Amino acid sequence: VERSLRDAIREGRLVAGTPLPSTRALARELSVSRGVVFEAYAQLAAEGYLEARQGAATRVAARTATVRRARPPRALATRGEHDLQPGRPDLSLFPRPLWLAAWRRALRQVPDSTLGYPDPSGTTELRDALTAYLGRARAVAPDPQNTVVTTGVTQGVVLVARVLRDLGHTTIAVEDPGFHVHRWSLERAGLAPVAVPVDDEGISVDRLAASGARVVLCTPAHQMPTGAVLSASRRADLLAWAHAVDGVVIEDDYDAEYRFDREPVGALQGVDPERVVYAGSASKALANALRLGWLVLPSWLARPVAWERLAADGGGPVLDQLALADLIDRGDLDRHLRRTRRVYRARRDALVAALGRELPEATVTGVAAGLHALVMLPQGTSEERVVAQGAERGLTFHGLSVMRVDPDPSDAPGLVLGYAHLTEQAIDRAIAALSEAVRATK
Amino acid sequence: VERSLRDAIREGRLVAGTPLPSTRALARELSVSRGVVFEAYAQLAAEGYLEARQGAATRVAARTATVRRARPPRALATRGEHDLQPGRPDLSLFPRPLWLAAWRRALRQVPDSTLGYPDPSGTTELRDALTAYLGRARAVAPDPQNTVVTTGVTQGVVLVARVLRDLGHTTIAVEDPGFHVHRWSLERAGLAPVAVPVDDEGISVDRLAASGARVVLCTPAHQMPTGAVLSASRRADLLAWAHAVDGVVIEDDYDAEYRFDREPVGALQGVDPERVVYAGSASKALANALRLGWLVLPSWLARPVAWERLAADGGGPVLDQLALADLIDRGDLDRHLRRTRRVYRARRDALVAALGRELPEATVTGVAAGLHALVMLPQGTSEERVVAQGAERGLTFHGLSVMRVDPDPSDAPGLVLGYAHLTEQAIDRAIAALSEAVRATK
Repeated sequence: VERSLRDAIREGRLVAGTPLPSTRALARELSVSRGVVFEAYAQLAAEGYLEARQGAATRVAARTATVRRARPPRALATRGEHDLQPGRPDLSLFPRPLWLAAWRRALRQVPDSTLGYPDPSGTTELRDALTAYLGRARAVAPDPQNTVVTTGVTQGVVLVARVLRDLGHTTIAVEDPGFHVHRWSLERAGLAPVAVPVDDEGISVDRLAASGARVVLCTPAHQMPTGAVLSASRRADLLAWAHAVDGVVIEDDYDAEYRFDREPVGALQGVDPERVVYAGSASKALANALRLGWLVLPSWLARPVAWERLAADGGGPVLDQLALADLIDRGDLDRHLRRTRRVYRARRDALVAALGRELPEATVTGVAAGLHALVMLPQGTSEERVVAQGAERGLTFHGLSVMRVDPDPSDAPGLVLGYAHLTEQAIDRAIAALSEAVRATK
Repeated sequence: VERSLRDAIREGRLVAGTPLPSTRALARELSVSRGVVFEAYAQLAAEGYLEARQGAATRVAARTATVRRARPPRALATRGEHDLQPGRPDLSLFPRPLWLAAWRRALRQVPDSTLGYPDPSGTTELRDALTAYLGRARAVAPDPQNTVVTTGVTQGVVLVARVLRDLGHTTIAVEDPGFHVHRWSLERAGLAPVAVPVDDEGISVDRLAASGARVVLCTPAHQMPTGAVLSASRRADLLAWAHAVDGVVIEDDYDAEYRFDREPVGALQGVDPERVVYAGSASKALANALRLGWLVLPSWLARPVAWERLAADGGGPVLDQLALADLIDRGDLDRHLRRTRRVYRARRDALVAALGRELPEATVTGVAAGLHALVMLPQGTSEERVVAQGAERGLTFHGLSVMRVDPDPSDAPGLVLGYAHLTEQAIDRAIAALSEAVRATK
């Protein structure tokens, strides 16, 4: 009764204002008990489909005509046939059965009292699990007391920036080229980004020292977008700088879980936990849509950052955090990473081979780790025209200039190509199309 | 093999640096295949428990000694034996099987492409479901294009405040008394709160007009904490004010899903969707820990607010949103609300009866709706001493002065009591203890 009435109203077969038969009459007509009809009317009235008035017939409510449908998600519109945008793992590898099992255990075991307003720092379970995981996998010197769960690196960086702004900072040094979205988020958070150049040893500490900023956001494990690893001497210089200016290093541990050819480099934070903020996320290891990340903070920053999260959004969803803790504790995250690393390494090899075949004049860097490659084109090639020609061939990717702080036509032309979400065959097709696009600009 | 080795390392039975037997030797000893041992070593090395070096024995890794445990959650420490703090539903009523079923369907049906970075406005599924739900249940004039999913009312208010600050606003009018946590979040978001008094018809629009602010945050359905419903004439005055000053009303639809005795009052937003921002959440209807809320915005504000969410945290978790959409679409949310409304009404009755019996000199207001009561004590009673005497008897609750913008010892003494999470017996015990506390201050 309830469902057929609701459907009739939703689909417009019963229009607003229509009086319904009395519960007694309808019960007789349908040969059901009057209680069944009464229950259905009460539920539909509670949902707002019906209006019950004392002494008058129950009617179809007026306001149900307002229902409209949302537009299709934007993502569908912005990805071409050959999608080489960076920032996404292969989402078909997301371990749905493992995640469901972890989530179900979390829901079964969580005590009622934990379903109230959350601790803005995150659940103790996840902070404990991250402490163990980051200690062994990334040589972070973690401490659950100084860990704050976030929705990802962006939120982590923004929370820290707001607290540092309150402590008197006005600028923050960022890598150039570097991840443009973070520059925008930092500006919105009240710190003005100051560009510091990057070379093949990573960020230039000399230029950083000259910038006047006392906070820097950088990607030591795998520079975004050049792929450079911060060299040993630069690591030492960077920490010495932080001490000298009483500054803070925010370490975005970008793509650190995917290393293909070389020894892992431990996190900078492990060397100087009171100067370095460590930021990471599960976006590449599992899926961006989970919105789970973390900060490991100097002890003096942990509490203000947790309060900032409380002020900003009241803390994150508890069940998702418990599920991730369960996944980590069982070793399932490591197992998943081992599996996907193998897949991505084969795709990396396919990309490098295809680029060597189709674009031998290009220089490919940054492919020892991470899920994107930087492809530098010969001087004289127009990056802008390659992007335009690519778009005509169904290619979506970033030109390097998008990531430069102050792009100039005389900059060396380059492309930032994400490949992790493509099969080897799709990579071959995409690079063939890219090669055509480059040729078409000559 | 893997688990027993991992446990041994975790528990310290195998210490850092310990060389392990070769895979061949251990396989022979355990009568398993060498592949099994090799797989276990590889997994534990991937997890960081073991260090494998070419040409040397595999050893227990050094860094596993850093593991520490998080402190117990704060919540346990701050709630007394008789907990009367407002803001929490009865979490034991959270419909775990329904939520699990909805969540499982969401995970099963979600396409891979939806697991990438989310639309910062929220999933189309949830925005569509909210459009239908808020239209019929709250007479909101919703539009999925103008809906932004949030983590709750706090994030919604903060996102809107930041955008309005960028548009030149510097102050925001808030209700006095009113929800103190929002005042703090607004300040952090860059708008200075200006207090406007509340009487038994709700916020004073005359005083609002005199405040100079052109934005107001208010709770028309059930004022927090007085429980006043904004009167019909004040509703009209408020919207006329917003037109006159080209202003914005932020409607926190606080506790609107729980109405016990009177006709529901539709949302203000439905009357003037281009002047009113509607903010709600699932915190009381389901559980605070889900962190799911929503904004319905004037069309000119929807896009800047979605961008602000993108800058702040990159958008919310997708699966939780899909689960809520499923729950709403099936009518399960309405059904759950009907069930819990009955439970809370009985508790409300028990509270009113207990207060009449134990504290006949007090005036109880705001109990026609919502999950808390305002209890005004006779002039001359010291609110501060009642709170202190209550604490000695294991009572935790808010004195009204906490919610006043500028508390003064001459203010009328009052208590804000949340009761929804307590059984009728627990309410009786708590109010008996409260009565003792009040007597002890005489």
